[in-house]
Amino acid sequence: MPRYTLHEIARHINGVIEGDGDLEIHGPAEIASAGRGQITFLANPRYQHYLETTQASAIIVDRTTPVPEHLAAVRVEDPYVAFLQVVRLFFPPREFLEPGVHPTAVVDTSARLGDDVRIGANAVIGKGVSIGDGSRIFPGVVIMENVKIGKNCVLYPGVVIREDCEIGDHVILHSGVVIGSDGFGFAFQQGKYEKIPQVGRVVIESNVEIGANTAIDRATLGETRIGEGTKIDNLVQIGHNVWIGKHCVMSGQVGIAGSTHIGDYCVFGGQVGVNGHIRIGNKVTVAAKAGVTKDIEDGQTVFGFPARPIQKMRRIEATISQLPELVKRIRQLEAQVATLLEKEGGLNQTNGEKHG
Amino acid sequence: MPRYTLHEIARHINGVIEGDGDLEIHGPAEIASAGRGQITFLANPRYQHYLETTQASAIIVDRTTPVPEHLAAVRVEDPYVAFLQVVRLFFPPREFLEPGVHPTAVVDTSARLGDDVRIGANAVIGKGVSIGDGSRIFPGVVIMENVKIGKNCVLYPGVVIREDCEIGDHVILHSGVVIGSDGFGFAFQQGKYEKIPQVGRVVIESNVEIGANTAIDRATLGETRIGEGTKIDNLVQIGHNVWIGKHCVMSGQVGIAGSTHIGDYCVFGGQVGVNGHIRIGNKVTVAAKAGVTKDIEDGQTVFGFPARPIQKMRRIEATISQLPELVKRIRQLEAQVATLLEKEGGLNQTNGEKHG
Amino acid sequence: MPRYTLHEIARHINGVIEGDGDLEIHGPAEIASAGRGQITFLANPRYQHYLETTQASAIIVDRTTPVPEHLAAVRVEDPYVAFLQVVRLFFPPREFLEPGVHPTAVVDTSARLGDDVRIGANAVIGKGVSIGDGSRIFPGVVIMENVKIGKNCVLYPGVVIREDCEIGDHVILHSGVVIGSDGFGFAFQQGKYEKIPQVGRVVIESNVEIGANTAIDRATLGETRIGEGTKIDNLVQIGHNVWIGKHCVMSGQVGIAGSTHIGDYCVFGGQVGVNGHIRIGNKVTVAAKAGVTKDIEDGQTVFGFPARPIQKMRRIEATISQLPELVKRIRQLEAQVATLLEKEGGLNQTNGEKHG
Repeated sequence: MPRYTLHEIARHINGVIEGDGDLEIHGPAEIASAGRGQITFLANPRYQHYLETTQASAIIVDRTTPVPEHLAAVRVEDPYVAFLQVVRLFFPPREFLEPGVHPTAVVDTSARLGDDVRIGANAVIGKGVSIGDGSRIFPGVVIMENVKIGKNCVLYPGVVIREDCEIGDHVILHSGVVIGSDGFGFAFQQGKYEKIPQVGRVVIESNVEIGANTAIDRATLGETRIGEGTKIDNLVQIGHNVWIGKHCVMSGQVGIAGSTHIGDYCVFGGQVGVNGHIRIGNKVTVAAKAGVTKDIEDGQTVFGFPARPIQKMRRIEATISQLPELVKRIRQLEAQVATLLEKEGGLNQTNGEKHG
Repeated sequence: MPRYTLHEIARHINGVIEGDGDLEIHGPAEIASAGRGQITFLANPRYQHYLETTQASAIIVDRTTPVPEHLAAVRVEDPYVAFLQVVRLFFPPREFLEPGVHPTAVVDTSARLGDDVRIGANAVIGKGVSIGDGSRIFPGVVIMENVKIGKNCVLYPGVVIREDCEIGDHVILHSGVVIGSDGFGFAFQQGKYEKIPQVGRVVIESNVEIGANTAIDRATLGETRIGEGTKIDNLVQIGHNVWIGKHCVMSGQVGIAGSTHIGDYCVFGGQVGVNGHIRIGNKVTVAAKAGVTKDIEDGQTVFGFPARPIQKMRRIEATISQLPELVKRIRQLEAQVATLLEKEGGLNQTNGEKHG
Repeated sequence: MPRYTLHEIARHINGVIEGDGDLEIHGPAEIASAGRGQITFLANPRYQHYLETTQASAIIVDRTTPVPEHLAAVRVEDPYVAFLQVVRLFFPPREFLEPGVHPTAVVDTSARLGDDVRIGANAVIGKGVSIGDGSRIFPGVVIMENVKIGKNCVLYPGVVIREDCEIGDHVILHSGVVIGSDGFGFAFQQGKYEKIPQVGRVVIESNVEIGANTAIDRATLGETRIGEGTKIDNLVQIGHNVWIGKHCVMSGQVGIAGSTHIGDYCVFGGQVGVNGHIRIGNKVTVAAKAGVTKDIEDGQTVFGFPARPIQKMRRIEATISQLPELVKRIRQLEAQVATLLEKEGGLNQTNGEKHG
């Protein structure tokens, strides 16, 4: 890793130094794990207590937060964004593939490759495939017939894209991603499941990133579609004919059943499951592990299984944790009522005697 | 895509035309998304309202449902089956691999390949493997020693089959499927986990289809077995020594722990989890996200975690949603009893005074 | 498979024969499924009833358990360990790869391979990779730049290891494992998610085994780390900067979100989900399907979602199943109180009359 003085770093992020500008920094690190010679940052006040204990030599902070004397500071407007720039300074993007097509790659003669497309060892590119300028196809990737891939995409080792699918620009597909596997559709006839032809495709719009070993099924007819800028984590399952809108976030191991449509700017926690054939609006948040069974309107936050608006869920949860106390209260009532009934019996008798 | 007149289509599905038989159709589509020039179908009465709004030019319907004038109709006995035939008319099965073995594939000299077996680029076929007539092995597939594959199977790019496993006829394995990985078995001895040898195998019977990135572990001893005609979706985990019966459906992200046996004609929703070493009968339905912790008898439908028969689960769910109202009723009882107790005290006192 | 007499087997496991030592055994099997000519074992008293019904010809048992006459017995101190030795006798470890590097493998000239490293067909080994003595790299594995792999590792077909990651000795990675895919980190800026550079790495310590299609993301900065001897099942998702301690067991489809730290000797059931940025102590057990939302102290067993100590959870579950009965008790109280109130009204009236 290269080294930079605090002066060089401050110049890079347009910051103001408090402390020794000649300090030599050999890398960035998070505040809790930073060591001597490293630079860290403070953006979230929750981490402010680390200011006293961090082993970092320098810190990127905002204009006003006081910093202990043992730490050199670089003050900027937005410490987090500045820190990311420092990370990129120490870790500039790397090139892993040689220019052109590796001799062991198998590229059909009908495939069209843009400028500076690089294709790694043992990759297989089918008939009629087109790949846009600057894209990187790593070793062992298989791209089947008539797939169209945009510019500056990165397909890591082991990605598979089935026939006819379309990938936009600046798309990142991590290892083991499968795009365009058959939708899970069968017709039950005479005691067995007959395969329904899966002849649609998958369209991945630009600036999408998809995590390792995630599978996105092709449509039965028409399209499965992932909208512009959406980020999908590892081991996610997207069924046939699902539409996901723009700028959504799908955490690890989410599963979306077939034909469900999801709006823009939705955020799904890990291991969420969503029924097929439903509609989820824009800006919907689904808490981790929730199971969504029916349509959700714009802007809702849902939780649990079946998923309910978070306020309702919290009320139910609160009552459930009240349960043991409720049982006590009922027991007390029963005792009191028993006493009353006994006395009542007594009173009646007394009264009876009196009357008698 | 080819085009067909409505006459040609009607002849293909043995249907009766109402409307213009010379209408040129350029493809099939679902009723909600169909456009002009496309043909759709109506099988489920739930979708009947689309009859008024669909943009399709023609529709396949049953003998009796009235169809608006703007839609040409083709009347048949079973509209869904007929529609699938029309889909196959427009999208006939495609051949993606060249005849024979791709020059970059590595096929052991001891492997036996049936008639018209096609093997794609960079596939690797180990010692003693046999592959039945008409099977398709796509690029990048790895088949290890002594694997036996039946006739007319399709192994999509990136499938891995470990040693000694057996695959029936007409089996479809989607990309990233792993068959025969070691079972997850360890013996805890002196503070660490020692690997238990996993020397069994996996048997996949005929007409099974397995979704992308699903993993099926080999048996510790003996067999893990997937029965005839069973369909398994993406990202499913099947542990060692699991037996799944015939004609089951396992949806995405289901997990079955080791040594569990499942009967025939079972249907599991997405993200279901099943304990190890249990028995599940025939025709059992497990709702999505349920967690099955113990044996289930034939014909049951279970739901939730721990999974319970659906009626019981619904009763519990209903009571839980009653909880806030129960709390109110208890509060009211408490107030009433307090009043009674006070009066009772008063009465006693009054009585006391009287007696005094 | 080879055959051994009971004499040979008893000598191998240092056991004492009861019955015919010349009996020829053709393989080991579990007690429920063993057939004639096979040897089985009894270690768990739960399986004792199988002694009467097993079809095995011989059984490995402890020093004291009585065995029916039709079964030849081999008595040892620890029947389970002895049985595993017998399994290894019948199924000695196999060698699947030829010595050296397969001619179709692509190994960068800068890679350093130890003694007896074997590399299969179409594997791809990047710049600066080092692989320790005795390791096995199966067909189609891709190892990117600067990866360091220890001694006697096994990387099954289709494993991908991204740049800079480090793997200890005796590590087993099953097919489809992805090590070092980018962490899932984005900064939301001006209506879209900007990728945060993921420039850390993954360290897998020695004696770790990782199941098929599991994905372990590289750290944003620093390390994601899997501790010595930990065993991870299939389709598990480990987020960036997660630390898992030594000798843990993670069952299938577990998901651990980013930056969570887990201690030693933890056991997680299948489909467990764990929040990001939390701390889980040593010897923590998390029941299958639980969702862990906050820190857990050493030695706890947790259950459910949100995960709670098992006693508390059981109490809540018990109360929930009591609910229908609680409703009845409340109804009875209401009836009794109504009666009391009525009589009380009567009493008051009576008293009133008296006073009047």
